[in-house]
Amino acid sequence: MGTKINTGRFFEHFVLGETIQHATPRTITAGDTALYIALTGARNPLHCSDPLAQSLGYPQAPVDDLLAFHIAFGKTVPDISVNAVANLGYAEVRFLQPVYVGDTLTTSSEVIGLKQNSNGKNGVVWVRSTTLNQHQQPVLSWVRWVMVHKKNHEAPAPETVIPTLAEHVNVESLVIPAHLKVNNALSHATGGNYWWDDYQVEECLRHPAGLTIHESDHTMATHLYQNNARLHFDAHLMKSTPQGQCLVYGGVVISACRALSFEGLENAIAILAINGGTHANPSYAGDTIYCLTKVLDKWALPDPALGALRLRMVGVKNISPANLENIKTTQGYHPHVVLDLDYTVLMPRKGNS
Amino acid sequence: MGTKINTGRFFEHFVLGETIQHATPRTITAGDTALYIALTGARNPLHCSDPLAQSLGYPQAPVDDLLAFHIAFGKTVPDISVNAVANLGYAEVRFLQPVYVGDTLTTSSEVIGLKQNSNGKNGVVWVRSTTLNQHQQPVLSWVRWVMVHKKNHEAPAPETVIPTLAEHVNVESLVIPAHLKVNNALSHATGGNYWWDDYQVEECLRHPAGLTIHESDHTMATHLYQNNARLHFDAHLMKSTPQGQCLVYGGVVISACRALSFEGLENAIAILAINGGTHANPSYAGDTIYCLTKVLDKWALPDPALGALRLRMVGVKNISPANLENIKTTQGYHPHVVLDLDYTVLMPRKGNS
Amino acid sequence: MGTKINTGRFFEHFVLGETIQHATPRTITAGDTALYIALTGARNPLHCSDPLAQSLGYPQAPVDDLLAFHIAFGKTVPDISVNAVANLGYAEVRFLQPVYVGDTLTTSSEVIGLKQNSNGKNGVVWVRSTTLNQHQQPVLSWVRWVMVHKKNHEAPAPETVIPTLAEHVNVESLVIPAHLKVNNALSHATGGNYWWDDYQVEECLRHPAGLTIHESDHTMATHLYQNNARLHFDAHLMKSTPQGQCLVYGGVVISACRALSFEGLENAIAILAINGGTHANPSYAGDTIYCLTKVLDKWALPDPALGALRLRMVGVKNISPANLENIKTTQGYHPHVVLDLDYTVLMPRKGNS
Repeated sequence: MGTKINTGRFFEHFVLGETIQHATPRTITAGDTALYIALTGARNPLHCSDPLAQSLGYPQAPVDDLLAFHIAFGKTVPDISVNAVANLGYAEVRFLQPVYVGDTLTTSSEVIGLKQNSNGKNGVVWVRSTTLNQHQQPVLSWVRWVMVHKKNHEAPAPETVIPTLAEHVNVESLVIPAHLKVNNALSHATGGNYWWDDYQVEECLRHPAGLTIHESDHTMATHLYQNNARLHFDAHLMKSTPQGQCLVYGGVVISACRALSFEGLENAIAILAINGGTHANPSYAGDTIYCLTKVLDKWALPDPALGALRLRMVGVKNISPANLENIKTTQGYHPHVVLDLDYTVLMPRKGNS
Repeated sequence: MGTKINTGRFFEHFVLGETIQHATPRTITAGDTALYIALTGARNPLHCSDPLAQSLGYPQAPVDDLLAFHIAFGKTVPDISVNAVANLGYAEVRFLQPVYVGDTLTTSSEVIGLKQNSNGKNGVVWVRSTTLNQHQQPVLSWVRWVMVHKKNHEAPAPETVIPTLAEHVNVESLVIPAHLKVNNALSHATGGNYWWDDYQVEECLRHPAGLTIHESDHTMATHLYQNNARLHFDAHLMKSTPQGQCLVYGGVVISACRALSFEGLENAIAILAINGGTHANPSYAGDTIYCLTKVLDKWALPDPALGALRLRMVGVKNISPANLENIKTTQGYHPHVVLDLDYTVLMPRKGNS
Repeated sequence: MGTKINTGRFFEHFVLGETIQHATPRTITAGDTALYIALTGARNPLHCSDPLAQSLGYPQAPVDDLLAFHIAFGKTVPDISVNAVANLGYAEVRFLQPVYVGDTLTTSSEVIGLKQNSNGKNGVVWVRSTTLNQHQQPVLSWVRWVMVHKKNHEAPAPETVIPTLAEHVNVESLVIPAHLKVNNALSHATGGNYWWDDYQVEECLRHPAGLTIHESDHTMATHLYQNNARLHFDAHLMKSTPQGQCLVYGGVVISACRALSFEGLENAIAILAINGGTHANPSYAGDTIYCLTKVLDKWALPDPALGALRLRMVGVKNISPANLENIKTTQGYHPHVVLDLDYTVLMPRKGNS
């Protein structure tokens, strides 16, 4: 007898090199994709139209890259971050294969780094998570690191191992769907007139639309991803915290910004990588999210019809990005900045669509 | 370089006779239909049961007529009404073919009328929009007219052309699904005891139920339709407008009224046409919508088992329709009236179900 | 002419032995299952993964037992409880067969008991409802009893017939899916380490997570179930009642508790029966629901790999279950208790998974 409530892993429970298999395999359905549109306003046509996707060489419309990522990520929360002091970062997020309605995703995480903090009360855990589909093919992988409480402060410190992580996923490591054949249906379908060749490094796009996040929006999305972190759902608990209310899951903010940035990046048809990201300030229900994009880099790809753009997606709340003077100063992030994401998209080149 | 944000068409950009192809083709899924039920409370069994639909001659359950319409309509917003001063009206909305889960809808619009206003600052644009399925069959068509800002007030006025529109879609133009065979399973499935023969011109039905619209309801619905008009989503922007808050998309109100009017019109199994409509006052989150229906006209149809009813659907907010003395006076609409819609439904005749 | 609004059955309209066929047959879709996850946070993997379900002998993932129950139950509301004074109870809820996406559910109710109250103004109606799938196989059956207004107080009282109901569904009446073969994939899929053998009668589990219910959450869920009871949807109407606001449908609270109790009951893979339940206090939007479980009884099953646990699910609002001293005293339920449900689950035995 005794409690059967799994209180999750504390810092001293993580062992370098071990692989943790996460619960609740998930078959992606047409319900998930419809909810994703309803909850974000996503309009990228590659994820909305089977005939369009087929004309580009896909067997059917792949699901939105971020929907797949959020579901894959959600699986890891009960095992990795339920006792987190803080989610410190993520890197090397790679989209390895399209995910389709009907695919079943399972996620496991390998512990690749450990460092106890000098206070002896907590430590940082690095894990590399991998999501497989039902054919045991990897569809996503990423690294994240989390500061986790120790349960027993007397537990001995593990050997410190800090993994070396790429500053960004380099162009050679980007995976382009082999079957992808760009054609001239794409321009009509996206409504966008600009292609890889048209974007310049250091160019800044201020996306005009805003999205107000309501309580049911963010909780439904986070539930859809089966991410059970309590601070998103339990308003009674959160009342007695400094925030005083539920926090919006960072993935909800990323998806809002991705949808808002469709206006100006209509032809960014797929996400190839997320190089890193900072959730600079918390978001709450009632906040209105806006987005601006800076072009960080651009790479031609082996297929002469395609290129990659490395972008900086900056999410701000409750002020127009036009009124944002500095994203970051020596004092840190502007208090209205909620997201600073470095990611890489696939975009067809001019004359191919 | 320079901005890549599409600011949309202004009045001087519309050319008589041109056809505008709208972005984001959309494959309708079972997720869309479930969300439509969850967001509206729709209970019309034709859209809920494949076996029922098959017994009536359909290959499977067709999706709710208004779900198809709102998705089809949403496509036109970025091109037609993003710079609108006002959405002035719509007419000749014809439902030409059932839409099924798995169908992919694309919409295009032909400019059929133009009239610059005497102030030189804006003008009225009339477009006829047509939605095709993946077999290039028209499933919906409608006309709407919108007052649009000029960007350059010096741009010359186009020749004035005002299209002639039908006061209502006449009975000969209504399209009845050819395969439809009414049978006696329908009465059990709808729970309704009244048929076309039972309804009398000038009869009034006061539907008893009310539906309170919450923020997430209307924004999720409008996102599901991929209608990106900002005034529904951006509460920060709307705070500085006279309304002070986000407006509910008119289509959400129409769907609420259609669902509420199920009680009393259980056997109105399909919408054949929308003859016109006025969104008399705005709706906001927190409003409770009620509905009353007046029978405007009734027509027998070539199939002796079927008839059509032309109905006036009146939506009111925050008062019971029983307390509504006059929908409209010489001073205009009652301030609680939010919708005055003229539409035509298909209803089986007595003794056939 | 005259009103065509169906005002529903009053007490004197119910006839002992009659069978009422309820409207709106419903084909369950992948949209329903995705919405159920988004609205409740359910993580039971049997309902999330087709390959897992197939490895356990199912043809595909069955839908969540409570999703099927709420949809089945919703059908009965317009005919049985629209004129209810109070929903008094339910019993003998039996889950007879798994429900799959693609199945079409219809529900009918037999009147099995009647008792006019001594005031002559209302009476109690008992009905046994049965839900069939498209193969005419029963998938669910249950009894509920409702106090219903008389319309005509002069109508004669019917003969009093009070049905005998089981205190709980006994172990011989539980239906275990014949094809179910437990295997060792289950433990990884649920993430749970405890099995039927590990749970002891009188053991208490205090599930740690809480779920705040927002307006759109509960109205979308109740609409999804096509339960049209007005007190959940019409805030304008409810303003003039003692509650002053919309009530949350009791089924929403049951589903919240079932999802919350996943932590500690990960391997309770199916609900076999609901023996009875009391909705002790109302829930409103903004309430945070918590759950505790007491083990009431445990039974081995003919298949040596399986057992059944009879559980008491107690839902409380706005206080941690750890702070709940007495669920019930001689004064009645603690004012924060919202649910006291007696149900039976299927759980594999140790060493089989």
